[in-house]
Amino acid sequence: MALKTVEQYYKSLRQVNPTAYILGEKVTNVVDHPLIKGQIAGVAQTYALAQDPAGKELLVGKSKLIGEEVNRFVKLYKSEDDLLTKVKMLKFLSQRIGTCYMRCTGMDALNATGVVTYEVDKKYGSNYHERFLKYLKYVQENDLVVWSGLTDVKGDRSLRPSAQADPDMYLHIVDKTKDGIIVRGAKAHQSGSLCAHEGLIMPTRDMRESDKDYAVCFAVPSGAEGIIHVYGRGTLEERAMEGIDLGNVEFSKFCPLVIFDNVFVPWDRVFLCGEYEFAGQLVRTFGDYHRHSHGGCKSGVGDVLIGAAAAIAEYNGVANAPHINAKLVEMIKTCQTMYGCCLAASVEANKSNSGIYLVNSILANISKLYEGKEYNEVIRLLVEIAGGFVADMPSEKDLHNPEIGHFIKKYLKGVDKVPTEDRMRMFRLIEKLAFETRDIVSNIHGGGSPEAHRMTLLRDTDLESKKELAKRLAGIKELGSII
Amino acid sequence: MALKTVEQYYKSLRQVNPTAYILGEKVTNVVDHPLIKGQIAGVAQTYALAQDPAGKELLVGKSKLIGEEVNRFVKLYKSEDDLLTKVKMLKFLSQRIGTCYMRCTGMDALNATGVVTYEVDKKYGSNYHERFLKYLKYVQENDLVVWSGLTDVKGDRSLRPSAQADPDMYLHIVDKTKDGIIVRGAKAHQSGSLCAHEGLIMPTRDMRESDKDYAVCFAVPSGAEGIIHVYGRGTLEERAMEGIDLGNVEFSKFCPLVIFDNVFVPWDRVFLCGEYEFAGQLVRTFGDYHRHSHGGCKSGVGDVLIGAAAAIAEYNGVANAPHINAKLVEMIKTCQTMYGCCLAASVEANKSNSGIYLVNSILANISKLYEGKEYNEVIRLLVEIAGGFVADMPSEKDLHNPEIGHFIKKYLKGVDKVPTEDRMRMFRLIEKLAFETRDIVSNIHGGGSPEAHRMTLLRDTDLESKKELAKRLAGIKELGSII
Amino acid sequence: MALKTVEQYYKSLRQVNPTAYILGEKVTNVVDHPLIKGQIAGVAQTYALAQDPAGKELLVGKSKLIGEEVNRFVKLYKSEDDLLTKVKMLKFLSQRIGTCYMRCTGMDALNATGVVTYEVDKKYGSNYHERFLKYLKYVQENDLVVWSGLTDVKGDRSLRPSAQADPDMYLHIVDKTKDGIIVRGAKAHQSGSLCAHEGLIMPTRDMRESDKDYAVCFAVPSGAEGIIHVYGRGTLEERAMEGIDLGNVEFSKFCPLVIFDNVFVPWDRVFLCGEYEFAGQLVRTFGDYHRHSHGGCKSGVGDVLIGAAAAIAEYNGVANAPHINAKLVEMIKTCQTMYGCCLAASVEANKSNSGIYLVNSILANISKLYEGKEYNEVIRLLVEIAGGFVADMPSEKDLHNPEIGHFIKKYLKGVDKVPTEDRMRMFRLIEKLAFETRDIVSNIHGGGSPEAHRMTLLRDTDLESKKELAKRLAGIKELGSII
Amino acid sequence: MALKTVEQYYKSLRQVNPTAYILGEKVTNVVDHPLIKGQIAGVAQTYALAQDPAGKELLVGKSKLIGEEVNRFVKLYKSEDDLLTKVKMLKFLSQRIGTCYMRCTGMDALNATGVVTYEVDKKYGSNYHERFLKYLKYVQENDLVVWSGLTDVKGDRSLRPSAQADPDMYLHIVDKTKDGIIVRGAKAHQSGSLCAHEGLIMPTRDMRESDKDYAVCFAVPSGAEGIIHVYGRGTLEERAMEGIDLGNVEFSKFCPLVIFDNVFVPWDRVFLCGEYEFAGQLVRTFGDYHRHSHGGCKSGVGDVLIGAAAAIAEYNGVANAPHINAKLVEMIKTCQTMYGCCLAASVEANKSNSGIYLVNSILANISKLYEGKEYNEVIRLLVEIAGGFVADMPSEKDLHNPEIGHFIKKYLKGVDKVPTEDRMRMFRLIEKLAFETRDIVSNIHGGGSPEAHRMTLLRDTDLESKKELAKRLAGIKELGSII
Repeated sequence: MALKTVEQYYKSLRQVNPTAYILGEKVTNVVDHPLIKGQIAGVAQTYALAQDPAGKELLVGKSKLIGEEVNRFVKLYKSEDDLLTKVKMLKFLSQRIGTCYMRCTGMDALNATGVVTYEVDKKYGSNYHERFLKYLKYVQENDLVVWSGLTDVKGDRSLRPSAQADPDMYLHIVDKTKDGIIVRGAKAHQSGSLCAHEGLIMPTRDMRESDKDYAVCFAVPSGAEGIIHVYGRGTLEERAMEGIDLGNVEFSKFCPLVIFDNVFVPWDRVFLCGEYEFAGQLVRTFGDYHRHSHGGCKSGVGDVLIGAAAAIAEYNGVANAPHINAKLVEMIKTCQTMYGCCLAASVEANKSNSGIYLVNSILANISKLYEGKEYNEVIRLLVEIAGGFVADMPSEKDLHNPEIGHFIKKYLKGVDKVPTEDRMRMFRLIEKLAFETRDIVSNIHGGGSPEAHRMTLLRDTDLESKKELAKRLAGIKELGSII
Repeated sequence: MALKTVEQYYKSLRQVNPTAYILGEKVTNVVDHPLIKGQIAGVAQTYALAQDPAGKELLVGKSKLIGEEVNRFVKLYKSEDDLLTKVKMLKFLSQRIGTCYMRCTGMDALNATGVVTYEVDKKYGSNYHERFLKYLKYVQENDLVVWSGLTDVKGDRSLRPSAQADPDMYLHIVDKTKDGIIVRGAKAHQSGSLCAHEGLIMPTRDMRESDKDYAVCFAVPSGAEGIIHVYGRGTLEERAMEGIDLGNVEFSKFCPLVIFDNVFVPWDRVFLCGEYEFAGQLVRTFGDYHRHSHGGCKSGVGDVLIGAAAAIAEYNGVANAPHINAKLVEMIKTCQTMYGCCLAASVEANKSNSGIYLVNSILANISKLYEGKEYNEVIRLLVEIAGGFVADMPSEKDLHNPEIGHFIKKYLKGVDKVPTEDRMRMFRLIEKLAFETRDIVSNIHGGGSPEAHRMTLLRDTDLESKKELAKRLAGIKELGSII
Repeated sequence: MALKTVEQYYKSLRQVNPTAYILGEKVTNVVDHPLIKGQIAGVAQTYALAQDPAGKELLVGKSKLIGEEVNRFVKLYKSEDDLLTKVKMLKFLSQRIGTCYMRCTGMDALNATGVVTYEVDKKYGSNYHERFLKYLKYVQENDLVVWSGLTDVKGDRSLRPSAQADPDMYLHIVDKTKDGIIVRGAKAHQSGSLCAHEGLIMPTRDMRESDKDYAVCFAVPSGAEGIIHVYGRGTLEERAMEGIDLGNVEFSKFCPLVIFDNVFVPWDRVFLCGEYEFAGQLVRTFGDYHRHSHGGCKSGVGDVLIGAAAAIAEYNGVANAPHINAKLVEMIKTCQTMYGCCLAASVEANKSNSGIYLVNSILANISKLYEGKEYNEVIRLLVEIAGGFVADMPSEKDLHNPEIGHFIKKYLKGVDKVPTEDRMRMFRLIEKLAFETRDIVSNIHGGGSPEAHRMTLLRDTDLESKKELAKRLAGIKELGSII
Repeated sequence: MALKTVEQYYKSLRQVNPTAYILGEKVTNVVDHPLIKGQIAGVAQTYALAQDPAGKELLVGKSKLIGEEVNRFVKLYKSEDDLLTKVKMLKFLSQRIGTCYMRCTGMDALNATGVVTYEVDKKYGSNYHERFLKYLKYVQENDLVVWSGLTDVKGDRSLRPSAQADPDMYLHIVDKTKDGIIVRGAKAHQSGSLCAHEGLIMPTRDMRESDKDYAVCFAVPSGAEGIIHVYGRGTLEERAMEGIDLGNVEFSKFCPLVIFDNVFVPWDRVFLCGEYEFAGQLVRTFGDYHRHSHGGCKSGVGDVLIGAAAAIAEYNGVANAPHINAKLVEMIKTCQTMYGCCLAASVEANKSNSGIYLVNSILANISKLYEGKEYNEVIRLLVEIAGGFVADMPSEKDLHNPEIGHFIKKYLKGVDKVPTEDRMRMFRLIEKLAFETRDIVSNIHGGGSPEAHRMTLLRDTDLESKKELAKRLAGIKELGSII
């Protein structure tokens, strides 16, 4: 049976044994670390809900490859419907988790690799696609969590990979042997890498011939020798250390820097190796998929934002004020736009040669543009609705202090019917939703930065045909481009 | 054969004989009037393209009712796919016409009437739905153009219909006979009423018991006795009168005020008559359909806006400037958002009891909100890209004046390769696209005003369930609403 | 006495005798032409209000040059207070005229010429400043209206003036004689040139050595031989031709293309002649002044927009609806921002070597950026508040038609207390305010386009010192720039 | 000498001895507490820079009251120039401190109390103004730091103060004796209360007769018996506890909840006591002053935001990319708008009866509206420019870890010339600027929430006169309001 239980997930994760550093300390038991366990709990939900009647319909699909039901996070997109269901699944999960459960990165990376290995083989007669399918079978059969390692640290951004002062600023092949390759470099912002069994590593940008050694794609266990996960610190982490004032009481997020210090990868896990002209296609395919994922995910978190705004308005005694309603409408507008554009990107999908469906890149990227900008205004509106206690509410420790606890309970009270503690919890949740760096910066930079989406939009829009429409209506005879 | 040719359309339209006033004059031959013929030409395209290989796929569908292919503008929405195709059809047509062809109003009105008559009958045992289907059969068999009369003149907007100083500020039943009803009132902003054979008249808002006589829905020929079409004047109409500097050389729009001066309607054309509690449902169903139509239509016009911007940038010699590209991206973003939300509203459709599919109201209304606000910025960006000649370019008469024509040709030249006349045509098109009141105000107020969309959004959003999501994540036990 | 009466203005204007073409016809009496007289009426207000107790305080100042009171439109900016008063004067006039009265262009051009001629003389020992002051004396003593000719037609915008296929795409010196210079070229968008006695012509951009002949500044009578004014057509002009449905019943705007067909200029009217390195300073100084003027002017028109919105809301019966109030607040916010930034640009002024004060360019350009973008939203909000009759209201001729006039009066009625005709007038005013191309495009492109303002902002901001602030707070030792 | 040195400030502060709780612990030495000392360091700068040549011009003014130079933070606004200088002083300080130094609250509260006590005395013949001046003399002579206690905890916001279930949700008089009054309640969000010697307490809203006991204004030492300061926790506070990864290496902010548990205030420190009709004027006057302060302050912080964005772009190797420049322009635009509107609000000031100048409320409130909304976009743009390491950069402890420190140094390197540590410092500063709750929420809610500013704008705008402007231009005779 290809679907793991929550217990099996935890058990298997304990066997990964990654090399990890957290705030300057080497940590051996990451699974129970207070800064890590919150996201593992989120990932665990992707197992739990796959076995729950409410979630099963969205989270489980049939794999032709292994002839069994698999978790959708390890399934290929074989139809428009798979893409629609993916968006709905991510919305569903985010509504319940309120932060990152990270498996979408692997799902999108697997699909992108599936699409592009097929194309590389077609050109070069290589057998990457077969290797990939074998690997995917392993992933499906074991219901693994996969992180996707794209974002290199990049060094000087005005220089190409091979032109950097330090050649390791982009991950690259440093040696090839008959058994495999040796790679070096570092991947930043690796959401939840310590919750995963495996990493699927890809280039972060297009490559030229001079960047050949940087055109590499491969799979690697999270605990492989030479891989070091360094926890990246964020706002609010002391709350997790203390175990109070958490806001989101169960779930959280973290994003290590993952260093590859001469890591060996055997050939059967190598899916691109020097075919530089496919690096761009690989990252763009992943990028379009991942922006599509964000639209589902963040519209689900958006429902939490909207719900928190409506709840705190109620707790404060201002529900139904016209200006509150007007703000809720703006919040709904942006969140549903992100969702709607991703549904539309699914409906307007195209089938690739590999049989895997590609989302409509324009609509997927537009969804992400709203996430990058207007969604930030959604969060601001939440803070505007909530009021000043998002900034500076006394601690739970003050609430429980025998000398001043009764004052806190008295003075942080809102409307009469709501217990002070519930109101404090809602403020803490809003603080978490609005000010947790790992979540908020992801809205802007996750799945590529807004400028990348804008470039995609322009590149993928057929301006010539639109010019012709205008010329025809204006009665202009010369329809072709003049340039 | 249920599909009329263009010639048949023109011929049949000449037989309608409406009572019409244009700029203070009674006009008998409206079909050839310079202020009217531009929109008739647009409507004619809905016939022409239905017989064109490129258009047929979108414009023609099968009607179970008459067992024949019909023009999609007279077809019911019997599936999600019908709704998706409608959006694509409207985009396709708007790309080619660049302004209003008005048949979507009738299409949406017919469908809304189909949905609601079924419900009324279910409650009251009336036979409105049967009457409606009989009427629809007539419309389909004759491939008629139908305008939908919703927008009453409204008088004092703080007062309900029955509370107005003048009872005629909303159209109402003034008498009932054994043969039918007599109605009085006026409907404003009736896009293209003089291009149509028939009108389908509906209430413009919800009604209470005291407004019973205002809860009326019926069909009426455009030329029926007592109906007076009064042309509403707009910007740029003198260009049509002169026949030069048109911008859009073939197509244009007009929107009469239509007065019902004691008009008789036989019972078999009456589809609601006093069942006031259904008035709201009727207008809301129409509203959601029509906002869905707008998203298709205006994203098609949007392609013309984008194309005109790209073309004039080229003509001016500034194509590929980074700031021009950034502006084009913003234009694409908004137009595709409108389109995407309407595709999504189709995918998220629900089947009504009548068998007709209802769009997702939230997504359809959001699309229209972008049209009402951000689309105006798209137009501003077009003007910003184009430059000052949108404001004040000399006339075509100056270009042809023997004394100064050569100066105009010399000084209005842009890049060397483009003839001055082509550049002038493009500026004129942009002027038309940006400053024709009948088009631009429709972006804001057509299909209801933004405030109506915002109210719909709030009403149709399930805030309670979203509050629960937030409460669960915050660890709050009491999940129900406190209010 | 240096202040002309309205009668003296009209009389003197009739003596100008410009060569003018309007819609393909040569026109000799431009003063009474229906398309021209509306703006002359606006300019006449600058004379009338200078003699009115309410206006005098703002419109009249003391000139040291002639030792008399002069109209502020021909006065130099000799203090921060002069700049503050200028902003307030323009706001005051726009509130009363609602459209362009054009004299600010001459005022700003005179001041810019005063600043720069002083600098040229300092470098070259030329006597441009003396010539300029002599010319200014003439302008002040005769209280003349001056238009400023900046905007060349520009041809291919990717090419510099001297690199154009046709060398006349920027106005330039084609010959020099002992008596003066001969110039050729054309200036576009010359607001109200036919209301003026004189033109003050300047370069439209910075120039390099190869563009030497294009670095020219001079004064010329509007009726000089070889100057041809070609009326640029705009929306709504037929209303002026018919004399009804005007919206703004007294005032309007027009903007000719002005052709210089080998025009002779005597030396004492030449203020720059080949000193190409000063062309940029001249146009930038003018630009900053003129953006400062716009802030005063358009915030005054903004008061009319806000007033029209509040009035029509009242006429429609929706005054005090929360969403109407929220929209009014947005309108006020933008208009007052434009005004406030220009007051601030006056307070932060610097004295130039010539003794004339320079506005703070950053604040002046920011004001114009709001005009270029957010002010368009102000206008959209006006249309949103007003409703659909901005698009398509029947004509005044329909109101007076004996057969249907009573219907118009009946059905266009709003709240009971307001006569239908007043409501119609308000809708017409709103149509004019929102859709008159010459006004609206000026918001975007008048005084330079938004991209020019953005470039100015970046160029005039001291980024280095701001980087140092950040570095100091971060505890970074190396403060200097690395580039 | 009325100007304290930094040492004198620290010494005097150690004598205040407030009752304080921080994260559940009672703290006696607050001055050296890691969560408190950062803001004390900021306040200390207001003493240090008053004695620095660069700061003196802005920070020191002459007091007529004591006939000596005083720190501007304890000076009355006796001219437009005082208001202009205040804005510039706050900008100057914020550029150097990058966060809150809190003395503006006391300055604004003192001035508002000065204005209103004069009015109360005029009506009632009371001697509040004299008491106030005596108190002010004490404050000036001792160069004290004063916090202003406005924001009550408010309970159920739909209920007036006297209608709350718990009467203490707004601070109120619970007893009067011959020596003074006893008050109870709590004030939230009291920026830096533990850095201050004194508190000046005021009502937070308008009051009606039933709220008489809530209309109270008085001064009280920060360490008075019955006053309890409870630290409000915010993001990033563990960094201060650890003393690393601070971002802003010297300065920070905190905002306690201050509880008044039956606090006694002697009569000579009571400035309003039951004259409920003046409560609204007091809070509105303070509000307008404080929004004016924010414009100066946050435009200064804005310079740090802009500088940090420009610096990190340089460090990343993307300086001068067109899209980076476009974003910097947007940032400059908003920050300078806030500054410009406050300069303008100073120029348009009015003198109150007390001789103290009142800012123009419309312009001051508009400035704050930009801070509440568009300034949030400025911060988002900073994050967009900076990139993903704002979210999750490894800790300084990792940098110094002997096993992985060299990896951190290697892989977090940007352009070659900049040391990794400097780049890390800049990212930490950006994290602090973008995600410190006490700072960011203050942008939205400090000095009143956006909805309050909008109400002020509408209330203080003369809509009637604007309607008349529109009516006149439309040719409407009936100018008065119809309502």
